[in-house]
Amino acid sequence: MIYLDNAATSWPKPEGVVKAMEKVMLDFGSNPGRGSHQGTLGVGRLVLRTRELLAQLFGVPDPSRIVFTGNATQALNMGIYGMLETGDHVITTSMEHNSVWRPLKYLERRGVELEAVACDHEGKLNPADIQSAIKRNTKLIITTHASNVTGTVMPIEEIGKIAREHGIFYMVDAAQTAGVIPIDVEKYMIDLLAFPGHKGLLGPQGTGGLFVGPRVTLEPLIQGGTGSSSELEFQPEALPDRYESGTLNTVGIAGLGAGLEYILSEGLDKSYQRETLLCQSLISGLEKVPGIKIYGPRAREERAPLVSVNLGQVDANEIAFILDRAFGIAVRSGLHCAPQAHHTIGTLRQGTIRFSPSSFTSEQDIASAVQAMSEIAKELQG
Amino acid sequence: MIYLDNAATSWPKPEGVVKAMEKVMLDFGSNPGRGSHQGTLGVGRLVLRTRELLAQLFGVPDPSRIVFTGNATQALNMGIYGMLETGDHVITTSMEHNSVWRPLKYLERRGVELEAVACDHEGKLNPADIQSAIKRNTKLIITTHASNVTGTVMPIEEIGKIAREHGIFYMVDAAQTAGVIPIDVEKYMIDLLAFPGHKGLLGPQGTGGLFVGPRVTLEPLIQGGTGSSSELEFQPEALPDRYESGTLNTVGIAGLGAGLEYILSEGLDKSYQRETLLCQSLISGLEKVPGIKIYGPRAREERAPLVSVNLGQVDANEIAFILDRAFGIAVRSGLHCAPQAHHTIGTLRQGTIRFSPSSFTSEQDIASAVQAMSEIAKELQG
Repeated sequence: MIYLDNAATSWPKPEGVVKAMEKVMLDFGSNPGRGSHQGTLGVGRLVLRTRELLAQLFGVPDPSRIVFTGNATQALNMGIYGMLETGDHVITTSMEHNSVWRPLKYLERRGVELEAVACDHEGKLNPADIQSAIKRNTKLIITTHASNVTGTVMPIEEIGKIAREHGIFYMVDAAQTAGVIPIDVEKYMIDLLAFPGHKGLLGPQGTGGLFVGPRVTLEPLIQGGTGSSSELEFQPEALPDRYESGTLNTVGIAGLGAGLEYILSEGLDKSYQRETLLCQSLISGLEKVPGIKIYGPRAREERAPLVSVNLGQVDANEIAFILDRAFGIAVRSGLHCAPQAHHTIGTLRQGTIRFSPSSFTSEQDIASAVQAMSEIAKELQG
Repeated sequence: MIYLDNAATSWPKPEGVVKAMEKVMLDFGSNPGRGSHQGTLGVGRLVLRTRELLAQLFGVPDPSRIVFTGNATQALNMGIYGMLETGDHVITTSMEHNSVWRPLKYLERRGVELEAVACDHEGKLNPADIQSAIKRNTKLIITTHASNVTGTVMPIEEIGKIAREHGIFYMVDAAQTAGVIPIDVEKYMIDLLAFPGHKGLLGPQGTGGLFVGPRVTLEPLIQGGTGSSSELEFQPEALPDRYESGTLNTVGIAGLGAGLEYILSEGLDKSYQRETLLCQSLISGLEKVPGIKIYGPRAREERAPLVSVNLGQVDANEIAFILDRAFGIAVRSGLHCAPQAHHTIGTLRQGTIRFSPSSFTSEQDIASAVQAMSEIAKELQG
């Protein structure tokens, strides 16, 4: 199988990821911060190590501001529900995933004012439009870092600057970019950064997290046992405990740590260059396929390493099915849980076929994908 | 190491658990319900299989009413916040874990009326006290199935009956009993059952779930991409999607499935008998140790397989530390994230030392624990 669905979940994982998970399952089997025996202490160190690696990757000075969640969606919900109250105004874009859009629409019904700034047909956002949308009661700006449909990279540095100048919080959905495109929360003035563990960070499913910046205090989404300050009837203030209730996914977090070690040792800049080059070569190849439509911007620096396309008017799911069954190529198709983005680029009915490489993808894999699409196009016209 | 901390996390796990997890990591690496390629379909089947096994274990006719969460705490929060609104009255007990108590105290500040029925010094609840606490606006009764501090089993069948007769919902925290004591949600008239995957169910950390009964519709705690009805701006109604947003912990769920297969093939009644017998023999041995205080009821059928004790006035953490370092015995000590329960049994200052066997514990392990406690008692008196 040629796996080109890394924007959904990266695969394969570095060897160390599975090994680290096995080690936790076999050697420790215990619970960090919940006792004093040696298994507990060993696992506690592994969790701390992953927290420190994430802090290092995102330029976070204090690792306790990295909070573990089960996925990026939980992290986004934690930020959104933890901050917004009736009467607040929130600005987002027309390219967001349902993990941002659905919580915001839910809050809109409960008295939060929502404004979605329109992006152009390539999914591009004009930062000036964010600036003009700001009102007296604007509390939060939320944008994706890169669209999961078009790959379009948002001008997060400009938006962060605008937000900070107006005393507004800025939350970034890094579902497609954490571990793929370098991110520095201080440089980009990001207050909340939500990320999955199982995509660009090369960890297992069931992992993710939220960076909670020093300006922010959230109402916790989930409350319960924190293994600290057990005697308190209310959630403790200390980080990360305030936002981490119940037993953590220690085995997943250990795997995520191994993924991070791989990324940091290979160098994120290098893998980013490589993956975007693969996408440029995919785009060049696909452009020659009759009837193809490629979405998003063309310039290499304007897109994350994923490419959404359609063939004529054919339903995207049909093409994806043929790619899988006849060519052994795994891609994602449909609406990618982001109807707003499809509305923006005009594919709400057809969906798109999305190719997404990782650093384990070869030039040959890309050539095979182009070849397969050419053959499918020929077949459809015949 | 002699591992007697299974009430925190069970260890070791059955062999199949690690193997099932490895298989997902190496073979599939993909996302259920998010595409049509073969990896996706394979993982989707594994997730469905685990859902079906959980439904079988708990007597749930419709597996789609089993919702996966990252741990039992998330499941409890999902039920509590998803149901209670300002003006509602909720009844709970004085033996609850912080994962129930803290969300309820939080809601109390926001206009939910909270009543905690007092249990006796062994942690026992009189169902008549629940009955008398019911008011016109009582919407929900929440109790643990068995205390994580004393092991005391609550009369859930009687409480379920009272709740149903009054048209009140009944939620059970099965953190200490799922996979340990047989549970039938229909027989016990349970509307919401929260359970961890990594304790009695023998799965990995990072797993858990909530049974949402047919009488219940909750506001979702977390909203986002569900892989279904992507075009909707609001969370879909269909189960389990309504309550499962974002990528699931597929690798953990596959491991949990293997844990469930082990339990169902061994027979839950058999392992329950074995574990409670081990506890009776632990209690008999410990009773002879000078200065020991054993908490909770004595009768075998009145307690889940865990035993909390203290030695004289010595801090529980100190004894646990000695057990670990000098005897290689892993237990849990302190407040066990349940200060209400410690208040009830009078150990809020001292905490308790908790021994909890699993079906992998031997008679010899129990004898060693008794021997170690005798030696520590002698040393402390010397």
